[in-house]
Amino acid sequence: MILPSSLKKLIDSFERLPGIGPKTAQRLTFYLLHVPQEQLDQFADSVENLKKKTKTCSLCFNVSETDPCPICTNRSRDQTKICVVEQPLDIMAIEKAGFYKGLYHVLHGVIDPLNNIGPEELHIYDLPPRLKNGIISEIIIATNPTMEGEATSMFITKLIRQPSTINHQSLTITRIGRGLPTGADLEYADEITLTKAFEGRKEY
Amino acid sequence: MILPSSLKKLIDSFERLPGIGPKTAQRLTFYLLHVPQEQLDQFADSVENLKKKTKTCSLCFNVSETDPCPICTNRSRDQTKICVVEQPLDIMAIEKAGFYKGLYHVLHGVIDPLNNIGPEELHIYDLPPRLKNGIISEIIIATNPTMEGEATSMFITKLIRQPSTINHQSLTITRIGRGLPTGADLEYADEITLTKAFEGRKEY
Repeated sequence: MILPSSLKKLIDSFERLPGIGPKTAQRLTFYLLHVPQEQLDQFADSVENLKKKTKTCSLCFNVSETDPCPICTNRSRDQTKICVVEQPLDIMAIEKAGFYKGLYHVLHGVIDPLNNIGPEELHIYDLPPRLKNGIISEIIIATNPTMEGEATSMFITKLIRQPSTINHQSLTITRIGRGLPTGADLEYADEITLTKAFEGRKEY
Repeated sequence: MILPSSLKKLIDSFERLPGIGPKTAQRLTFYLLHVPQEQLDQFADSVENLKKKTKTCSLCFNVSETDPCPICTNRSRDQTKICVVEQPLDIMAIEKAGFYKGLYHVLHGVIDPLNNIGPEELHIYDLPPRLKNGIISEIIIATNPTMEGEATSMFITKLIRQPSTINHQSLTITRIGRGLPTGADLEYADEITLTKAFEGRKEY
């Protein structure tokens, strides 16, 4: 069938997005055919300007409209804590929960030798300089509890613990807690999660 | 958290699409942050021009770059058959299968009183005029086997059977076959499908 080229192009564009297969790409494209041109223009505009209007914060490497970002410049935040995350989205999740009031450091990925991503490709080596001022008292490593996330976490810990990196002894390095998520069912938990949950048990 | 407005805008645009929730919208937006500007421009361009470069065929109401569409103008197709479908996507599916060589008629929806969609909102009344020339010998109604699809199918049949609509007796109206899809498991088939499969049984 001779599909109009403008439809074909949009289907192709959608298919390039992660988690969107050919069928979903088709469905979205044909849905947009019934949408007012105004909404299409808005959509096109937001795609085109996505990167033009965003910067990377030169301190924490979060995406932001300003450099430094609003979190880094917010003096009411706890300047003694840095939470290390993989992606800007992780910051959104933590901020939504609302309990954490410290600073962040975005790695923009994890060490993943199978995909040729080493520490140089990430913002790992940008972290030690942030500790030099002696104000930071805790680094909370909140990379994902995956194999790559754990390896990256260990790499960062080793890097920070090098005597050349920090010149004060009051720095604590912590890793986010492991165990059963809220609402989970013990019966269906995998072995590693259960092991971690028992290891991480707390006294009442 | 103060999310850059350009990100917020794109997340909003994605969220308006069917089947895309807030989490997926976020994920897609943050994915696009790592994509070259060139690809973003391409994407934006295809969204903006989607409708500008497509027309609706004035004969069959399929989407097309030309009016009439390539199927309607293709003289090698069987001019005696019209297959009635709900959406242009249905034509794509049928054309991909490749067995059907007749013409089409796209309703652009189904009769759905709960959502205030009556026959006037669709291209139902555009079908009878296409039969006046006396060339058409079969109408294959291929609306979906849903409640709305069946009701629409029955409405169309009644409409065509009105003596005022057609002035020849050689017109056959058929409905696509119902039964078990290829690869299905009898054990898990629902009652209606099983009933239809028995009703539609064929002699070897």
